[in-house]
Amino acid sequence: MNPQTQKIDNGGTLVQRAMNAVTEYIRSADLRVGDSLPGEATFATELGVSRPVMREAFGALAALKLIDVGNGRKPRVGAIDGSVIASSLNHAVNTAQITVPQVWDVRRTIESRTAALAAEQRTDAEAAEIVALADAMAASQNDLAALTRNDIAFHDAIARASHNALFVQIVSSFSHLMQVAVPTAWGTRIAATQREVMVRRHKAVADAILRRDPAGAVFAMDAHFDTSIGDLLEGMAAAKGSNDD
Amino acid sequence: MNPQTQKIDNGGTLVQRAMNAVTEYIRSADLRVGDSLPGEATFATELGVSRPVMREAFGALAALKLIDVGNGRKPRVGAIDGSVIASSLNHAVNTAQITVPQVWDVRRTIESRTAALAAEQRTDAEAAEIVALADAMAASQNDLAALTRNDIAFHDAIARASHNALFVQIVSSFSHLMQVAVPTAWGTRIAATQREVMVRRHKAVADAILRRDPAGAVFAMDAHFDTSIGDLLEGMAAAKGSNDD
Repeated sequence: MNPQTQKIDNGGTLVQRAMNAVTEYIRSADLRVGDSLPGEATFATELGVSRPVMREAFGALAALKLIDVGNGRKPRVGAIDGSVIASSLNHAVNTAQITVPQVWDVRRTIESRTAALAAEQRTDAEAAEIVALADAMAASQNDLAALTRNDIAFHDAIARASHNALFVQIVSSFSHLMQVAVPTAWGTRIAATQREVMVRRHKAVADAILRRDPAGAVFAMDAHFDTSIGDLLEGMAAAKGSNDD
Repeated sequence: MNPQTQKIDNGGTLVQRAMNAVTEYIRSADLRVGDSLPGEATFATELGVSRPVMREAFGALAALKLIDVGNGRKPRVGAIDGSVIASSLNHAVNTAQITVPQVWDVRRTIESRTAALAAEQRTDAEAAEIVALADAMAASQNDLAALTRNDIAFHDAIARASHNALFVQIVSSFSHLMQVAVPTAWGTRIAATQREVMVRRHKAVADAILRRDPAGAVFAMDAHFDTSIGDLLEGMAAAKGSNDD
């Protein structure tokens, strides 16, 4: 029998209650990333639940990256990880619960803000990295794999320069969709001239961040999304159309 | 031995590879929410992995809400669920990886956009629901629990009226933090007069959405975040200060 289905009166299933007990322990003991936690056996005894229930709870917490369970050593408090948001996002797109243009609307919304924050908060090293990545995009214009890699790194670097770890994780969660969408779109013939515009838009964002100009960074990022991303979505549709032929 | 630690050459652990095989199956078979999947045994045989590895993969996929595993019946494709993003968010706040003001910056960014989209896209029924929730907030001004409940429902209703399911899930992931933050802040004495301003701001957002005015909705939502939320964060700091006395 699956222990997850042994319903209890409050707090959901036994497994859910066991998960809540671990997160509540982390919160009330004021633990930080990397701190170690009591093991499965200790929690099972403390909570009066079976080892299989506790093992399932630990497995679920590890899947959500709230704890980090290694080989034989004690479980540790996990670091926030965009791959959790990414798995939801990719699943929702793959099963048509969300469309790619809807994800891109969320990206535009988030990245207008990271561009502004980066222009305000970036260190000199961060500005130099962002400019270098824009230059690397220009240099890799004819190598789709390198261009995509630099494009993703560029957006991630801006998010880091916003100095808000939640923006960093949300932006990084878009990477997988960019890996699929960017080569699909730029690989089509209609994108040949648009690729240069896209590269110039990234340079404009980098320049605004370099000169600490939040309004300019927002303007350039919005322009990037409104033109280049519009082209990209058209490119994807065109690529899909030609595959359907 | 923990099967998660049997490293393979590519694609991470065996469990990760088994998880990827399931998500790839969902994608390539073009499945939708509620469609059923082959069971653990079928996947284990197909992939040449052990039943414990496959069971762990199914457990992790269920924790991430990518599949829905019920009692004895076949696993089904899961619906996108903001609780996955919420668990990351709450964990990151509890372990000081992200501060509450940083989360509120992300909320402001997202909810400026949902307010604009709602003003453009809302149906008449959605507009009526949003106005009714703003009125319910005014009516429940002196009942903190009801006020908080209506506040959360108000922001969720606007997200739904944006007609973008990703915004809906992100906004709903903030609920738990609002349940903690709102009563903490508004319960303090310094917030007594500010509560009325907060209620008026929500009414202004609702009115702009009702009259299909995106710019007005953004202006009102930003004003709400810039003043009331500023007060709320101060209130939280004050409550924390008085608890520390």
